[in-house]
Amino acid sequence: MEFGSDNTAPAAPEIMAALAAANAGHRPSYGEEAAMGRVAGRLRELFEAPDAHVGLLATGTAANALALACLCPPWGTVMCHRAAHVAIDECGAPEFFTGGAKLTTLDGGDAKIAPDALAAAIAALAVGDVHRAQPAVLSLTDVTERGAIYRPAEIAALAGMAHEAGMKVHLDGARFANALAALGCSPAELSWKAGVDALCLGGTKNGLMAAEAVILFDPELAWEFQLRRKRGGHLFSKHRFLSAQMEAYLEGDLWLRMAGHANAMAARLAGGLAAKGYPPAHPVEANIVFTAFPADLLTQLQGQGLQTSVWPAEPGTPAAARDDPLCRLVCSWATTEDEVDALIDAL
Amino acid sequence: MEFGSDNTAPAAPEIMAALAAANAGHRPSYGEEAAMGRVAGRLRELFEAPDAHVGLLATGTAANALALACLCPPWGTVMCHRAAHVAIDECGAPEFFTGGAKLTTLDGGDAKIAPDALAAAIAALAVGDVHRAQPAVLSLTDVTERGAIYRPAEIAALAGMAHEAGMKVHLDGARFANALAALGCSPAELSWKAGVDALCLGGTKNGLMAAEAVILFDPELAWEFQLRRKRGGHLFSKHRFLSAQMEAYLEGDLWLRMAGHANAMAARLAGGLAAKGYPPAHPVEANIVFTAFPADLLTQLQGQGLQTSVWPAEPGTPAAARDDPLCRLVCSWATTEDEVDALIDAL
Amino acid sequence: MEFGSDNTAPAAPEIMAALAAANAGHRPSYGEEAAMGRVAGRLRELFEAPDAHVGLLATGTAANALALACLCPPWGTVMCHRAAHVAIDECGAPEFFTGGAKLTTLDGGDAKIAPDALAAAIAALAVGDVHRAQPAVLSLTDVTERGAIYRPAEIAALAGMAHEAGMKVHLDGARFANALAALGCSPAELSWKAGVDALCLGGTKNGLMAAEAVILFDPELAWEFQLRRKRGGHLFSKHRFLSAQMEAYLEGDLWLRMAGHANAMAARLAGGLAAKGYPPAHPVEANIVFTAFPADLLTQLQGQGLQTSVWPAEPGTPAAARDDPLCRLVCSWATTEDEVDALIDAL
Amino acid sequence: MEFGSDNTAPAAPEIMAALAAANAGHRPSYGEEAAMGRVAGRLRELFEAPDAHVGLLATGTAANALALACLCPPWGTVMCHRAAHVAIDECGAPEFFTGGAKLTTLDGGDAKIAPDALAAAIAALAVGDVHRAQPAVLSLTDVTERGAIYRPAEIAALAGMAHEAGMKVHLDGARFANALAALGCSPAELSWKAGVDALCLGGTKNGLMAAEAVILFDPELAWEFQLRRKRGGHLFSKHRFLSAQMEAYLEGDLWLRMAGHANAMAARLAGGLAAKGYPPAHPVEANIVFTAFPADLLTQLQGQGLQTSVWPAEPGTPAAARDDPLCRLVCSWATTEDEVDALIDAL
Repeated sequence: MEFGSDNTAPAAPEIMAALAAANAGHRPSYGEEAAMGRVAGRLRELFEAPDAHVGLLATGTAANALALACLCPPWGTVMCHRAAHVAIDECGAPEFFTGGAKLTTLDGGDAKIAPDALAAAIAALAVGDVHRAQPAVLSLTDVTERGAIYRPAEIAALAGMAHEAGMKVHLDGARFANALAALGCSPAELSWKAGVDALCLGGTKNGLMAAEAVILFDPELAWEFQLRRKRGGHLFSKHRFLSAQMEAYLEGDLWLRMAGHANAMAARLAGGLAAKGYPPAHPVEANIVFTAFPADLLTQLQGQGLQTSVWPAEPGTPAAARDDPLCRLVCSWATTEDEVDALIDAL
Repeated sequence: MEFGSDNTAPAAPEIMAALAAANAGHRPSYGEEAAMGRVAGRLRELFEAPDAHVGLLATGTAANALALACLCPPWGTVMCHRAAHVAIDECGAPEFFTGGAKLTTLDGGDAKIAPDALAAAIAALAVGDVHRAQPAVLSLTDVTERGAIYRPAEIAALAGMAHEAGMKVHLDGARFANALAALGCSPAELSWKAGVDALCLGGTKNGLMAAEAVILFDPELAWEFQLRRKRGGHLFSKHRFLSAQMEAYLEGDLWLRMAGHANAMAARLAGGLAAKGYPPAHPVEANIVFTAFPADLLTQLQGQGLQTSVWPAEPGTPAAARDDPLCRLVCSWATTEDEVDALIDAL
Repeated sequence: MEFGSDNTAPAAPEIMAALAAANAGHRPSYGEEAAMGRVAGRLRELFEAPDAHVGLLATGTAANALALACLCPPWGTVMCHRAAHVAIDECGAPEFFTGGAKLTTLDGGDAKIAPDALAAAIAALAVGDVHRAQPAVLSLTDVTERGAIYRPAEIAALAGMAHEAGMKVHLDGARFANALAALGCSPAELSWKAGVDALCLGGTKNGLMAAEAVILFDPELAWEFQLRRKRGGHLFSKHRFLSAQMEAYLEGDLWLRMAGHANAMAARLAGGLAAKGYPPAHPVEANIVFTAFPADLLTQLQGQGLQTSVWPAEPGTPAAARDDPLCRLVCSWATTEDEVDALIDAL
Repeated sequence: MEFGSDNTAPAAPEIMAALAAANAGHRPSYGEEAAMGRVAGRLRELFEAPDAHVGLLATGTAANALALACLCPPWGTVMCHRAAHVAIDECGAPEFFTGGAKLTTLDGGDAKIAPDALAAAIAALAVGDVHRAQPAVLSLTDVTERGAIYRPAEIAALAGMAHEAGMKVHLDGARFANALAALGCSPAELSWKAGVDALCLGGTKNGLMAAEAVILFDPELAWEFQLRRKRGGHLFSKHRFLSAQMEAYLEGDLWLRMAGHANAMAARLAGGLAAKGYPPAHPVEANIVFTAFPADLLTQLQGQGLQTSVWPAEPGTPAAARDDPLCRLVCSWATTEDEVDALIDAL
């Protein structure tokens, strides 16, 4: 019962096949291979963004940190949710790559930034005051760390406030495909049309071996991005293995099919859990289910092989709801109905 | 006729098979998988260094920069050859990861640091003078950028001078396997027994898809290394795909067999070129051959499909020897005798 | 009516005289002058810390940032109050000098960290989790930004929690003399005896032209501090003018007399304001008074020459108390009774 | 016999008087004082640069590092002479403030960059190659570290090459006044008219207590400069004491008179030394004399109170000329004819 993380899943067979195919013979290195041109073209087409710059690399932390470094000067601040991956799960990578920028962490339920919280943070800015960090970036995460989804209109509302305050908008899309599959909107609607300036499009959590794309809708940042990527040690010499993964990912909507499957498994899991008396602690909108199990039940399930992780309750959770450990259960492209049902049956 | 770089070669079939095998089912992420324990154990055994810390990552630039950052404070200087990869081919990654350390570049033929040059640089240090960069690291590259090899005794001589001056010793071993295969000595003899404190053991240039190991012979640096790796965005979530490559690389001496083959191809190439009147410009000791072709011949060969790169002549090369473009011809595990002979025949 | 800041006051006549005296003839530079030896000796004596390292520089921001950089690695976090100068008034200097460390901001009334808030932050740490920032420093400010004072026992309680969690303790003492003068305790009691590892001893706000001392109670940090100071451009060539100020500052307890005077003026001001119906919004324990004036009264006072600054109400302030602008009124060594009375009379 | 450094001299009486005058009463802080407006206006007038941005700070290292950080991205390289202060005397401050840029050190006699050396370095650039540091800044020093002077035409020639290569030009003018006094040209001719983009105008070595100006001829860099200065801890709160020094420095050409006096003393010294058989090792064009004394004579002179510093011979100096220690003798505004004659007589 593997619900520990979408990072523990294997790569999809289509990806392994693409890697094998890409391995034939010699190829130019450092992104000069023909496949990279195709990947960039395909992403520009999918995102209806003919001028966007596309860069590939192997980890989500690198994607986020490099994108933020292109948007935020050392004296800038990045506004993000208190629970954001960039704030707490990257060991300070954004601070490192930006040269010491500050993160301003904001509140909001389900790990979504509350518009009021953003408004208050913007109101507290001291633009033009040399003593204060200057506004630079709003960083959103979609799907959020609590499994909820920002709709395009929600992103647009927050991004509008940010832009008006002179900030750029970064979207950590480690699970962007899951959001897209759930919403059924277009990639453009969930990104630049809603005000996103730079998107980190995840792949590793959704069936790839190790590949992420940074999509800069402002092509003027392209050269800086490339220099920062190289300087950060993130430019692959045998780059063909990144582009091969990404090409196969997009081919025939594999990315959306895998994400849709993961979402469906989470919905099935949430339904089954609720029926057994374990309702979700957060809206189950993508591939993640949070629910509280009594401590002894959790121990018993773990004894039966359940992989999960215990998370702290969100700030604001009523004390009564805090007694039992809150479990995060993550589904992936590789999660099977049998595995979901096995957990439900085990209850 | 693919002699452009060892980075344009594919991954070895054994590596692809290992990746496929590693893809079965769920695995712990971030290096917690069992295979990583086996890799660390095997490297410690091979290097006769039971306490060494082993970390994996995907690019050689990252390996060098992270290792240097663990050895060199921001106010330190890294002494290296003027032609070193860390000095000129990493877009300042060492400066970035160290927080702004300085590189002191030294001279010497065949991209080997001349002992006199190191002695002079050490003599010019101002230890304890707060206005000056402080001694920190000697960085060597074996195989060198010009295809030559430092013998253990040569490393020991330079490392001894460095240690006496209070510096640590880093070895960029992007082609360490090639040096080892050529010398026939033990991994320990070419590293810590000769005074190396931190080794970057390359894999990507020698048949891997994208995997390098940093071996820290001082285990006290382990935790700092791990934090810097994560913070640098270089900790893989699906880390099993790094350990799978490295495990297969070491299995049955695959690494040395691939490197030995590449070396043999270079020797065959050098012999054939010399016989046709194109003697090597540097000793051909590993998998790289430098030779000068007349400009029109080079154009003709390139027209026939030769992949190579033109390098500047080394400082100190007599003017007469500079007329013709100096070509770097690199062999890899994937270079065939037919390919070598095709180039020789084309002359 | 100059209550805008202690930074708008002139230097004390004793300081100007000392600078003039120090100007006679040639002197060694970069801190090699004899006076620096005397300053270090005097501070070690005053603080009963015979091994402490003393460094001088010209700004409080530099003092804080350099001290923090000596205590906090790039992957560490500095816990401080949400209102701390290091958090909001230094344009990210701590992030810059530490190489990108994180600041964790904590709550508490009167800009004092609440022990509960520190306990919660420590409990939330993930020591040894490579994805998270690691505990490094607790930074306190005494006198706080709201004019309150930590007593030695309060510092000891917080510092004890920090040390137990493996953190070092930094004290931003821009107004340390004011705290000392108010408490009547010894310098040692308010610093290392209470658990402070590094003290930034302010001078500029208390009658100096531009001079601050960093006192490192752990002398092992001395050399790193000196290198960071030089590298930060903070090592004065004509260093005699820093040591002259600091020597005169300590001579005959001038520092405490000036601070005591400023405190007395604030007490007089607070008393007068309260009598007129404007009670202090925070305890008036040192040289700073916060009180709320109706907006039209404030405008009128400013028209009469009042210099003050309007601050946001502290989080948690009842809404009813937020209607009127909250004014910060700062007294200094140069504030006169007449000036205080003039403001009270103007009400 | 104080010839050790211009940093060991006191501040000029006019400067002390200006500081005393500036100390009257309260003043706005952080550069908001009226005097700063006058200083900026006066420098713009003197330099015929009505749009230039002027910022003050206390040390030359800070001035250089901040100016370079405004001109050079982290992946850029700063070309400078091998003997430049920014390269060897600032403990890596340029690397720190730029976020890890590289310095490319060039050769040339008398610490002047040889045009050929610059041309070769420019030719070796790999513009647009993501693996290489990118061209960013040419940094000149006038007066050079060996006491020689670049003429406007020499600066223009080098700056023209730099600009053509897409680089900006920085001038370390720690002794700019000495160069100006010697040449008799206008400040504009020796700076922006010759192609200088950013000038660090020294004051501390020429009679000030501690004040330097950064003049950015491109006003678009102003805000970034101010943020970097604050973030670097270099924005003075009692800023009036910087502007007072600079205002008095420029008043009635005090800066040029002091520099001219120092130059004249150096010329007198050089003449006397030559007459005694100790010819200058470098052209004596400003306030610095290099000459070689036999070791035992030097010891004897030091016994008589001579302050000097021994420098290494320049690369390229014939071996025969290296036998005796090369002494650097520096004159300042405070050097007297008697002191010069005393040294000459002592020979």
